[in-house]
Amino acid sequence: MGRTANYSDQACSVAATLEVIGDPWTLLIIRDAFRGLRRFEQWQESLGVARNVLAARLKSLVAQGVLEARLYNERPPRREYVLTAKGRDLQPVLLAMLGWGDKHVYGPERAPVRFVHKGCGQPFVARTACAHCGEIVGPRDLAPLPAPADAMTVGQAFALNEAEKATA
Amino acid sequence: MGRTANYSDQACSVAATLEVIGDPWTLLIIRDAFRGLRRFEQWQESLGVARNVLAARLKSLVAQGVLEARLYNERPPRREYVLTAKGRDLQPVLLAMLGWGDKHVYGPERAPVRFVHKGCGQPFVARTACAHCGEIVGPRDLAPLPAPADAMTVGQAFALNEAEKATA
Repeated sequence: MGRTANYSDQACSVAATLEVIGDPWTLLIIRDAFRGLRRFEQWQESLGVARNVLAARLKSLVAQGVLEARLYNERPPRREYVLTAKGRDLQPVLLAMLGWGDKHVYGPERAPVRFVHKGCGQPFVARTACAHCGEIVGPRDLAPLPAPADAMTVGQAFALNEAEKATA
Repeated sequence: MGRTANYSDQACSVAATLEVIGDPWTLLIIRDAFRGLRRFEQWQESLGVARNVLAARLKSLVAQGVLEARLYNERPPRREYVLTAKGRDLQPVLLAMLGWGDKHVYGPERAPVRFVHKGCGQPFVARTACAHCGEIVGPRDLAPLPAPADAMTVGQAFALNEAEKATA
């Protein structure tokens, strides 16, 4: 995945997520999937990424269950790739990145990609909220809890997923 | 930054953010900064990353204004690194990744790192909300707006930042 790191011995969901999407190309492929891209040639054109790299990333995202491959033509066989529910759940990661880049790289007035929140009709700016009470949270609103004594490492969590898939 | 990609010709804040933090080590360094780590040796121990790689990532994060270097010892000179306001604004990115890894890699019952939302006292689960109305948003709640005709590329945005810094 374009890195020299292995952090599968950590017990951390951030590291676990990076195992799946911790590669700039991978995140941009997913970004483009949210924009509606579905076909190899579309990503190739959008990203200018080498074909072998793109093929490897798509294969990995399908293996991880983030994208689903669908045959849209039988002869010759042609696949398109759509986000699964697991893949759509990455939207908060992308929206958080979008918000940070808008604020700190482009500046809010110069954001190149904008959305409207359909619910209220206003330009969308992302905040992080508590799922329980709905309140917006900031850096000082969270207190860490002690780690469970039996916390699994990233490597153990992936191995368990594979084992569960195999018996499903 | 451990990638073979260059996407500075895109007009996108996700790509812009990846220019700053689009490297697994970098994101884990920032994660550990939120946990309170400040010193080279602490990151080295936490991450097991090569010293030259860690030094390069810290230097880059200071150059980008995500971390601030502070001298805590004069002889010999020793620096510690703390998150700036720009760095603390990355919390939503990390919380979104934490939430995805908890749900899709570990499973919610096995999350290795947990927080309490001080405001309501409940275990914290992140949602994305609209800054304007406070409503929780999902994949179907946003509508894209047309890109501005003069949208800057990532490369142009960084060049403008550098130029503004130089004249500040």
